Amino acid sequence: MNKEKERLILVTNDDGIHAKGLSAMTEAACQFGNVVVVAPTDGQSGMAHAITVKTPIRVHKISENKNIKTYSCSGTPVDCVKMAIDVLLPRKPDLILSGINHGANSSSSIIYSGTMAGAIEGCLNQIPSIGFSLLDFAKDADFTDARHYAQIIIREALKNTIPAGICLNVNVPSINPSEIKGIKVCRQSHGVWREEFDHRTDPSGYDYYWLTGTFEDLEPNAEDTDEWALHNNYVSIVPVKFDLTAYQFIDNLKKWKF
Amino acid sequence: MNKEKERLILVTNDDGIHAKGLSAMTEAACQFGNVVVVAPTDGQSGMAHAITVKTPIRVHKISENKNIKTYSCSGTPVDCVKMAIDVLLPRKPDLILSGINHGANSSSSIIYSGTMAGAIEGCLNQIPSIGFSLLDFAKDADFTDARHYAQIIIREALKNTIPAGICLNVNVPSINPSEIKGIKVCRQSHGVWREEFDHRTDPSGYDYYWLTGTFEDLEPNAEDTDEWALHNNYVSIVPVKFDLTAYQFIDNLKKWKF
Repeated sequence: MNKEKERLILVTNDDGIHAKGLSAMTEAACQFGNVVVVAPTDGQSGMAHAITVKTPIRVHKISENKNIKTYSCSGTPVDCVKMAIDVLLPRKPDLILSGINHGANSSSSIIYSGTMAGAIEGCLNQIPSIGFSLLDFAKDADFTDARHYAQIIIREALKNTIPAGICLNVNVPSINPSEIKGIKVCRQSHGVWREEFDHRTDPSGYDYYWLTGTFEDLEPNAEDTDEWALHNNYVSIVPVKFDLTAYQFIDNLKKWKF
Repeated sequence: MNKEKERLILVTNDDGIHAKGLSAMTEAACQFGNVVVVAPTDGQSGMAHAITVKTPIRVHKISENKNIKTYSCSGTPVDCVKMAIDVLLPRKPDLILSGINHGANSSSSIIYSGTMAGAIEGCLNQIPSIGFSLLDFAKDADFTDARHYAQIIIREALKNTIPAGICLNVNVPSINPSEIKGIKVCRQSHGVWREEFDHRTDPSGYDYYWLTGTFEDLEPNAEDTDEWALHNNYVSIVPVKFDLTAYQFIDNLKKWKF
């Protein structure tokens, strides 16, 4: 019995079916089992955990080669995962891999990330899930190292166990491979995006805005965060959960006089 | 000096500028200060923490009466909060109120909720924020009780302090007011949406799918959850944070051999 042959791996992303990072993720994945790719037809960056409820969802089979089947889905990354689990796959996948994202999903960027939402949707459904991101937004970014580290982390995740309800958020710095110091387990840094709306006027004289922004790490000296790890040439890996309860405030909140 | 007059409150939602629940939220809010409403032009249910980066954002001033200014924004609830803080408001608001949502945002529904994303975006920006939801999806739902409980909770939140980085998720059962037993501080229940895609064929013969689903509470007997509280006729209130780190798994993850 060949475990690799039996294993069913779902691959998704938020940069869309044509993204170079998706190809790199698929190449890494197919070393470990049969792969089904279900990825957004168009880019869905910044879509977070959005689901499509007001328009219908379309799915198209793109290709089927050896151990890789590929579908495009008109929805968000979370729609892709739901569609795969409920309609396209013969059974629940053994692993979900999301990425490799073009650009960082460290610190609070995780909250806006469609790529990480794909992984979080996986762990909501009790499926071991990992999201991968490379710190390079470029369309033609070089994913060679990110794919290498993805393979190392996938191998270890299959040997060990990611507990139910937890997924992994992996970010890879975009530097010379010889400069990468290793893989560092971290917590999510506390940072925020400072918005700078780009205010313009259209040809008819009406105002419009482009959302832009710059990221600010609010705890740059904390050595246990993902931001610190990435700035210090480590691959960061943060365990992530979907229970948003702020347990530390429950006892105080109970003292309020409602 | 009149504190109520000086206080600046931002109101948003995900059901859109015309939702009855937004009017109820605004009525509750204007008891406590000057209100600026910035709400999506169209409904944005299920948009989670999505931001609009691929299309420009439009904003229109709808009205200005006494202590209430109202703007519509073409983007998501998170876009509305960012736009308010960075462009429309004279200063950082003292309080952000999101809702009152038509339908529950308890348990894992919080992850898909645009209304709660509005509140979470507030606490990311260190602004005390509360999301409110009524367990009634109907367009003409009766928000009388939900508004009443919103006022009680807002009053208490202003007397006490919501710590930085935490917001509140309030859900109100849709039952006879005399049956409501009170307000219960809870944790987020562990539940999932079981999808049932509605598969149809369009007039040209092509397949399409509608995303539907039913919610399943995976721990129905746990008396400290929001789901239990709502099923037992309490208003539920869960403190929520944006740090998704699964701290309980960090030590184990450090033992993996990368």
